[in-house]
Amino acid sequence: MKRIFICIPYLLLMQHITFAQEDKMAEATMDKVKLHVQMQNDGRPTYDVIYNNKQFIKTSGLGFELADDSTFYKNFKWLGSDTKQVDETWSPVLGEVSKIRNHYQQLTVHLQHQGGQQRLLDIVFRVFADGVGFRYEFPQQPNLGYFIITNERTEFALAGDDKAFWIPGDYDSNEYLYTTSKISQVDNTQIVKNATDIAVRTAPDAKAVQTPLMLKSDDGLYINIHEAGLMNYSAMQLHVDNVTYKLTSALVPDAVGNKAYLKAPDHTPWRTIIVSDKAADILSSKMILNLNEPSRIANTSWIKPMKFVGVWWEMQTGKSTWSYAKNADDKDANGKLIPSGQHGANTANVKRFIDFAAQNGIQGVLVEGWNVGWEDWFGNWKEDVFDFVTPYPDFDVADIQAYAKAKGVQMIMHNETSGSATNYERRMDTAFGFMNKFGYTSVKTGYVGRIIPRGEHHDGQWMVQHYTRVAQKAADHGVMLDAHEPMRPTGVQRTYPNWIASEAGRGNEYNAFSTGNPPEHETIMPFTRLMGGPMDYTPGIFKLKNYSSNPERQVHTTLAKQLALYVTMYSPLQMAADLPENYQAHMDAFQFIKDVAVDWDDTRILEAEPGDYITIARKAKGTGDWFIGAITDEQARSTAFPLNFLDKGRSYECIIYADAANADWKNKPEAYQIKKIRVDSNSKLNIKLAPGGGAAISIKLLK
Amino acid sequence: MKRIFICIPYLLLMQHITFAQEDKMAEATMDKVKLHVQMQNDGRPTYDVIYNNKQFIKTSGLGFELADDSTFYKNFKWLGSDTKQVDETWSPVLGEVSKIRNHYQQLTVHLQHQGGQQRLLDIVFRVFADGVGFRYEFPQQPNLGYFIITNERTEFALAGDDKAFWIPGDYDSNEYLYTTSKISQVDNTQIVKNATDIAVRTAPDAKAVQTPLMLKSDDGLYINIHEAGLMNYSAMQLHVDNVTYKLTSALVPDAVGNKAYLKAPDHTPWRTIIVSDKAADILSSKMILNLNEPSRIANTSWIKPMKFVGVWWEMQTGKSTWSYAKNADDKDANGKLIPSGQHGANTANVKRFIDFAAQNGIQGVLVEGWNVGWEDWFGNWKEDVFDFVTPYPDFDVADIQAYAKAKGVQMIMHNETSGSATNYERRMDTAFGFMNKFGYTSVKTGYVGRIIPRGEHHDGQWMVQHYTRVAQKAADHGVMLDAHEPMRPTGVQRTYPNWIASEAGRGNEYNAFSTGNPPEHETIMPFTRLMGGPMDYTPGIFKLKNYSSNPERQVHTTLAKQLALYVTMYSPLQMAADLPENYQAHMDAFQFIKDVAVDWDDTRILEAEPGDYITIARKAKGTGDWFIGAITDEQARSTAFPLNFLDKGRSYECIIYADAANADWKNKPEAYQIKKIRVDSNSKLNIKLAPGGGAAISIKLLK
Repeated sequence: MKRIFICIPYLLLMQHITFAQEDKMAEATMDKVKLHVQMQNDGRPTYDVIYNNKQFIKTSGLGFELADDSTFYKNFKWLGSDTKQVDETWSPVLGEVSKIRNHYQQLTVHLQHQGGQQRLLDIVFRVFADGVGFRYEFPQQPNLGYFIITNERTEFALAGDDKAFWIPGDYDSNEYLYTTSKISQVDNTQIVKNATDIAVRTAPDAKAVQTPLMLKSDDGLYINIHEAGLMNYSAMQLHVDNVTYKLTSALVPDAVGNKAYLKAPDHTPWRTIIVSDKAADILSSKMILNLNEPSRIANTSWIKPMKFVGVWWEMQTGKSTWSYAKNADDKDANGKLIPSGQHGANTANVKRFIDFAAQNGIQGVLVEGWNVGWEDWFGNWKEDVFDFVTPYPDFDVADIQAYAKAKGVQMIMHNETSGSATNYERRMDTAFGFMNKFGYTSVKTGYVGRIIPRGEHHDGQWMVQHYTRVAQKAADHGVMLDAHEPMRPTGVQRTYPNWIASEAGRGNEYNAFSTGNPPEHETIMPFTRLMGGPMDYTPGIFKLKNYSSNPERQVHTTLAKQLALYVTMYSPLQMAADLPENYQAHMDAFQFIKDVAVDWDDTRILEAEPGDYITIARKAKGTGDWFIGAITDEQARSTAFPLNFLDKGRSYECIIYADAANADWKNKPEAYQIKKIRVDSNSKLNIKLAPGGGAAISIKLLK
Repeated sequence: MKRIFICIPYLLLMQHITFAQEDKMAEATMDKVKLHVQMQNDGRPTYDVIYNNKQFIKTSGLGFELADDSTFYKNFKWLGSDTKQVDETWSPVLGEVSKIRNHYQQLTVHLQHQGGQQRLLDIVFRVFADGVGFRYEFPQQPNLGYFIITNERTEFALAGDDKAFWIPGDYDSNEYLYTTSKISQVDNTQIVKNATDIAVRTAPDAKAVQTPLMLKSDDGLYINIHEAGLMNYSAMQLHVDNVTYKLTSALVPDAVGNKAYLKAPDHTPWRTIIVSDKAADILSSKMILNLNEPSRIANTSWIKPMKFVGVWWEMQTGKSTWSYAKNADDKDANGKLIPSGQHGANTANVKRFIDFAAQNGIQGVLVEGWNVGWEDWFGNWKEDVFDFVTPYPDFDVADIQAYAKAKGVQMIMHNETSGSATNYERRMDTAFGFMNKFGYTSVKTGYVGRIIPRGEHHDGQWMVQHYTRVAQKAADHGVMLDAHEPMRPTGVQRTYPNWIASEAGRGNEYNAFSTGNPPEHETIMPFTRLMGGPMDYTPGIFKLKNYSSNPERQVHTTLAKQLALYVTMYSPLQMAADLPENYQAHMDAFQFIKDVAVDWDDTRILEAEPGDYITIARKAKGTGDWFIGAITDEQARSTAFPLNFLDKGRSYECIIYADAANADWKNKPEAYQIKKIRVDSNSKLNIKLAPGGGAAISIKLLK
């Protein structure tokens, strides 16, 4: 290396030094967004961001502590900067829109550290009309090969005591309920302590919050802070200073306390700041996707959106169990498990789901609890749990596959790892070979439990690499991936389009086994968790209370709101989560789930306010049909919006699935009304939403 | 579990309680060895051991600290004890003898902890004529399922300030030079600091030593402390109290500081104390093998002993390199590595070794550096290093395999992991599939570098499980295993007979790249490292000084001693480590390497003193031929021994490969003489060994 490449960095330096003499600052602008970068007197690089002449991110530090140099955030020399502008358009494989414009002004600042090693650091900023993304790049250079990041010191100095929608900065979970508070009031201590419904909690910093962090300033600016392209680094949390309102990056550590292992040339993920004076613009931002790398999969024709049903909600609500025997030691004289009679994933029951899917045009059937190991699967930090290929005696893989195939239904594989990633990695070739052999085209993975390698965390670099490795392995085998309990998404679905959804947040399931999700929850999620990518939220619950196991539990929405979530919670993979018998009781409402698209040509955020309400219209891919979802929090709401996005001069059949007049989430959640009308682009709809309610609307182009 | 099995422990208890009232002590005896076990007033179980009426292990504590109970070494109630005697004989697949007698008196002590959980603990002792083995057993019981051991408190209270042959207690290396000192003088600080030739050193306790620990008391007792059956636990080191001479078990921690994860019913490895007033008895002890489980491999017919040559010593001595290019970044315009011209594992050179092996009846050829990755392989804690299946451009796998097969030679696979066990595990199915595809029947593995999962250590439970998993995987694929840098062996080759050798100690190679191994080294190794199992020491160096890379280095033995090591360093896998051209300069001496066996029907330790000398005679398996190796330390030595182990009335051809009269390891290491005589069972041999010298003798039965 040294002999051949050693001169190149120095040649670059020469060029930049001409800039360096001019100034120690630079700026870049796109529409209302303006970025300043400058060098402080002590050699600290800083930046600040202005929106519409208001500085909403004040002077904020940049840089690192490295294992072999704790000062890699100051004592820099400004070598120079350069800029370029990009304006391009690309098409996602699956998405909310069919074409995405990527338009930004790029500013690269070249720095050299003034320690003995004279190391180079570039900071690359991209200024968009809706915000700023930046990342650190470590150029190839003689004195920086392999290195360890012990701390990242990126700051986001908020201009005021903004209102924040936040969850605790936990190394192992993104499944907390959101708290709405001023930045000055952030303290997660009691929240973490009380969140006993979350299996693994590791939140050592009471002032740390997760990203995506949604903020609203007193003067009405909406700000979203997150990251993009997290594939080889630990997830960024934010440490909150309650007094100065400064947020500082806090990376998830590994088993020995390090934050990331890199080798130059390399770079960090992008740090993203999305900003607007309209909340709807936050939801329609494509900045995070734009900052991700293009697809690494050349042929993506096999990647398909999908609705599915599954043997799952019945376990969540206590009708059946994942396990085959009651306990791991319930064995007969021959050492065989004694069935409890409660096992959900039995062949007959699975065929019932296949029949229902086939009858209703639902593409997939997920089955959890099909493979041996569920009697003793998590909570004991046990390494060898599942083998991913051995079915329980009452689950006939070949028979089920043949039955599903004959009915045109895809079976969805389930690989729960219980957090034992080492066990999964050593068996992954076998597991994906099994999927290929039996014709599974998609897999749901799970990571419930403490991570093995012990000392690693769900959101640390090693696990981030693991999830990415699984996505690559799945792609190698032509399998689509739906990851549960991975790190929260950062737009990597652009790079791995087969990674079509993740959970990585507090899903609908919490309504079954915990105090649940309050009605505002789904109005916050699109501004937080979903900023990074699609969520497998599992909407579509029709029987909203009186579960067999937990009679005191209920879903905190109306039935109509469950329908609306198919539009407001974007995902190309959407479950119809309830049981066939519960759908059969409301087939008129189920029609919306049958009809609704999961992949889109266009999306319009008609109105939105985090924590209060969201109304979104989307145009189904390759058709002229539109679908609208409108949801509210615990407040009843009346809303009205024009349908001016419809094609001029065309006529549409509009079906409105709305809350009944007397509906409310608490006492009368299953009261809905269905209305069919004709509409065109001059029409305006008036909709009433119950407390915790919603409305789902299908608008089909009449031929 | 609870409903079906809950009563069984209590039934057992009932039975023991009858004992409990009688006494709080028990004992067991076999020949000169006597064991006492008793309960102290504070509920601490203790033991002591007597040999020939001398108490050489004084009252010593037993027990644990658990993650949920730090007092699991005291406050026990003595429930009772039971005994049994076993006398059986078994045959190892490969070994120093063809039949092994397993004769012991077993004493099991049943204890119940007097904490709130009333947990049960059994301690099982086996008393042999040559020492004591004991282990802890955790019975199935209601209040002990999964549990974590945070500390083991087993003590070995030496009766005096014994002389010890020791290396530092290092979590990652067993490759230190041995120090001989009194127990009161043990301090590894400077040794660890100065051992810069060892890549990874982690020795936080200055008073910790590794096992096998060889001891000699002032009154002439030889004592060896080690363990047996280490497959699911961390390796035991010993913390030395310089004042009381008490040794205490110190287990290697994992990334979060825990020592072992178990689930009852389970047990620890055996702790072993071998004792005799004759040093030779230590070397002939089979206690450690006897305490291991029988073979887990049903059909062992494919497991064969083997001598081999290899493309390896030429890299150690600087003639060629493992890597293909000089640096990882030496690439041409097409991104292909630019060859340095120094690459050892090229097809032509490999064929030269195949030719030499075929001509001389050597079964195998090892090739290191055959696969891509050696330009940047260790030292950077990098996870993705080798893929184990991609050869360098100048190594033609198929051609080499065909060539070797035609000549009746077995190629030996080499899988270096550089300590990245996670990378190996996820690629292991592919790696072993590759071996099967190309006909490799054995693999040498390597673990040079810091372990990944980061925070784990070479000798911790996770890695112990890893090495064992590799042995199982190799068995599944019909492949024999030679592991370098694993935990030191504990007789597990009985359970996995395909794991035919390990390095796990300071091999001959240190003579090439460091200050080397002093002449006494090989007289200590059989009493320490080799107590646990065969070592791939790589003897047979004929060109003992003036290497191309390090002219100041040399092997610290004579050539004749290199020959003797084939007998004194037991292994069913023995390398002829030098280059063909160096053997071709001394084909008369090489005849011994061609002739010597590596698997044996019988073994006689003719004389031995750790640190001074060893003479061993072995009878080749399935023949009437004997081979003798005699070695000395830096002192010249004359020795004489009768050949009364030969068959009476038969005549033998005896070839003696001895040091020349003027030989010495430092100045004239390559001076040897070969003498051929007739001998029978009445003969006596007189042998002179040079300083650092040895003698190798073949005694062939005349038909």
